[in-house]
Formats: sequence, C-alpha cells, structure tokens
Amino acid sequence: MTFRASVLTLYPDMFPGPLGTSLAGRALDTGKWSLDTTNIRDFAIDKHRTVDDTPAGGGAGMVLRCDVLAAAIDSVADGRPILAMSPRGAPLTQGRVRDFVAGEGAIILCGRFEGFDERIFEARAVEPVSIGDYILSGGELGAMVLLDACVRLLPGVMGAPDSGVDESFETGLLEHPHYTRPQEWEGRTIPEVLRSGDHAKIAAWRKARAIEDTRLRRPDLYERHGGVSQASPSGARQRDEGRSK
Amino acid sequence: MTFRASVLTLYPDMFPGPLGTSLAGRALDTGKWSLDTTNIRDFAIDKHRTVDDTPAGGGAGMVLRCDVLAAAIDSVADGRPILAMSPRGAPLTQGRVRDFVAGEGAIILCGRFEGFDERIFEARAVEPVSIGDYILSGGELGAMVLLDACVRLLPGVMGAPDSGVDESFETGLLEHPHYTRPQEWEGRTIPEVLRSGDHAKIAAWRKARAIEDTRLRRPDLYERHGGVSQASPSGARQRDEGRSK
Repeated sequence: MTFRASVLTLYPDMFPGPLGTSLAGRALDTGKWSLDTTNIRDFAIDKHRTVDDTPAGGGAGMVLRCDVLAAAIDSVADGRPILAMSPRGAPLTQGRVRDFVAGEGAIILCGRFEGFDERIFEARAVEPVSIGDYILSGGELGAMVLLDACVRLLPGVMGAPDSGVDESFETGLLEHPHYTRPQEWEGRTIPEVLRSGDHAKIAAWRKARAIEDTRLRRPDLYERHGGVSQASPSGARQRDEGRSK
Repeated sequence: MTFRASVLTLYPDMFPGPLGTSLAGRALDTGKWSLDTTNIRDFAIDKHRTVDDTPAGGGAGMVLRCDVLAAAIDSVADGRPILAMSPRGAPLTQGRVRDFVAGEGAIILCGRFEGFDERIFEARAVEPVSIGDYILSGGELGAMVLLDACVRLLPGVMGAPDSGVDESFETGLLEHPHYTRPQEWEGRTIPEVLRSGDHAKIAAWRKARAIEDTRLRRPDLYERHGGVSQASPSGARQRDEGRSK
C-alpha cells in the first residue's frame, strides 16, 4: 500500500521541490509514496478567483474563505486524515509522524495570509498541526517537513531496518553525539571509550551522554522522560531506522 | 544592509527551491536578502570526494567528517553566526528568529546521514538548531524553514509594518482564531461579537480566545506565559508584522 499525500495550496509549483531530491525523491520515483497537489484557487466561486477576504471584526491581513477551502478539501477527501499547517496546531512529534505513517497518507492544507476561517476545522474535521513555535510565510514548507519526516519511515525507504534505535526523540531523549575519523583533529580527539572496542562500555557511555545532553539542552524532554530513574515512556517506538537529521 | 544566508549542503540544487517563490522569492529577487550555497563535497580531501565515515565505537549510518565540514565552513566564515540544523539543538523560536534578523545573516550547515562529528561544534563555534521534535532526512528543509521565518521579518518584505501584533508566539500566546465572509456557511455563523463593530469588545474577545486556546492546546506555552495574571514575558517582541500561515 502506497502512502498517498495530497497537498492543497495556492503554490502547487513549489511541489515536489526538495521532496523530489535525495531520499524522498528516490522514494517518490520508485512509488513508495505518491504526491498530488490541488490549487485552492481552482475552487474560488467568483470570476476574480478570490480565495480570501478581510477578517471579521477588523484587523490586518486576509483570511482564507471556508467555502473555498471546503470545496478544495471535498475534491480529494477519501478518509485520510485532513491536516492544516498552522501555528495554532499541536506541535508535530516523532510519535505523531509514526501515526501518520501507519495510515494511508494525508491531505494537507497549506495556508497563506492571516490563516484559515476557523469554521473549516470543525466542518471538515481538519486537524491543525504546527511544526514549531515560529511563523512562516505559508504552510508549504511545513507540509514538506511533515512529509519528509513520514517518507523516511516508510518500508523500504531507508537502508538497514534496525539502525537508529538511539535516534533523537525515538527514545524520549536526544541522541548521543557522534564521532568519526580522523582520530585526532586540531588537537581534539575522539573520546577514549569509543576506541575501546568494549561494546557494553560504549553503550553505557552513549546512554549516559544522551541523558546528560537531554538534561542540559532540553529540560522539558528530560522531565517528560522521567530522568534517569525511569524507562522510556515510548517503549513501543524504540525500534527502527537510521539517519539523524 | 542585506541579510546574507550561506548554506553548506550536499544538495545545493535544492536551493532556493521554495524560497525562490512567493514572499521569500520576491524578497530574494529585489535584494532584500541574498542566498549562496556551498557544496560540502567540494571540500573532501581524498580523490573519491568522501565526506563521511563510519561512527567511532560502531553503530549504523555514517557521520560527517569534522575536517571536511571545517574546511567548508572556513570558506565562508566572516563573523555571521554559524548554525547547524540538528535535532540535538535548541528548538527554534520566534524570539530566536528575531535575533537572527537583527544580525547580518547566517551560515547554515545542513547534515545528512547520522549527523556531524561532534568536534565541529566547539572547534568552529557552531550552534545546533532544531526546528522541532521529529527527524528529517537532512538539514536542508530545516534551513529553508529558518530562512523563511527570518526573511518575512526583514524590513520591507511584508506589507503593513504594524499588522500582526497578535500573531502566534509574538505575545507568548497562540493567535486568536480568524473568520471572514460568508457570514453564514453550512449553518455556521461568525461569532456575534465580531460583527458588533465594538472595537473594545472585539479586542477583549480576541484576547480571551488567545488565552483560552493557548491554555487548552498548549499548556506548556500557557504556563510560561504566566496564564492570565501576568503580562507577556517578551514585551520587547510584541511589535510587528502580519501573516500567520
């Protein structure tokens, strides 16, 4: 079964863009996933092809009309989850990405201007998703981020199915740091333990560094993880593939 | 002064990509910012142009070599902050975006594979930045997200310099919901207060909805904001432009 992505946007030419290259691009070429775009403007109902209007109650910017958005959604809706990239949404997490990957794909609504008429969310069961606590000029890059995160987890897309167990967020912690040759560079050496050949010691060092870096850099994650005293809260998600960022 | 972005990547052809379209693209065309790319592979030191090697201590995937990365960085370094897109970094925030925008630009290192040899961070004062708690196939989309967030805030890029005061994250809260015509749609109406013409009442309703939606959807933000009893913790960042996403 192929993971099918349908993107609703005012800028269909942005796609596949970066998703047509490298890992995601090869997966697209080999049919591991499919991508179609729909131009929201094609569902405007007046002769000027208007998709937006001024905010009710006044204020700056323009708001995307719910009737136009609904018509665009209805043209592709088929039971897949309908997402809208929005800073008002729940923050995307690796766990949520795995939920999407387990399904048949997603319909992704990309906004521009001030945002969407709020009524669309209830009327079409649209789930707002945020990729982070910052504001972008539109939802297209967010859609690409979400799709890239999904595609790399699809069966057959990455190499070794067993690598990356320690990947950031998969264990509820940041990943441990990496080193490679040269062994000495500008007076800096690879930590002794990593050259010891003692696999148990190496695993213990990596675990300790993952915990310590999470505590120092991401106290929020560290707290949710329960610190050192508890096992990962997401045990079911500790399997899986390689490649960090 | 132009905001200058230098991106170090193994996939220079991905750029400008989505950043060449719409708001960011127009700003690029009109010289509001500049973008150059450097292929990390051009700084490989062997005849096979190798940029990565196996992880010290064993494990899956490949790690980007610090000597190659350093040479690529040194070719463009000029005092601008040097960032690396990495899930081990500090989460990008709207406040951090404003810091970057106040400067001369950024040098952005995009990883692939398992990540960077850790020594590069100290050796070249590289700041790891994460766009969210999920894993991507590479740093390129993250770099585009960071740059799009910056570019829209550059002087002259967006329309009205005074719009968007209520934008998500600028006040420490999510933005209030938006509505526009038609007034009634599929039996759903625009909230009465927004049609009242009473600007004080409208402002109060929007503030209350921003607080309530933040409390329900983002208890983490709500707590940092101090709930209803305190002013925004980022008063200095409450100015500014429109457009949500």
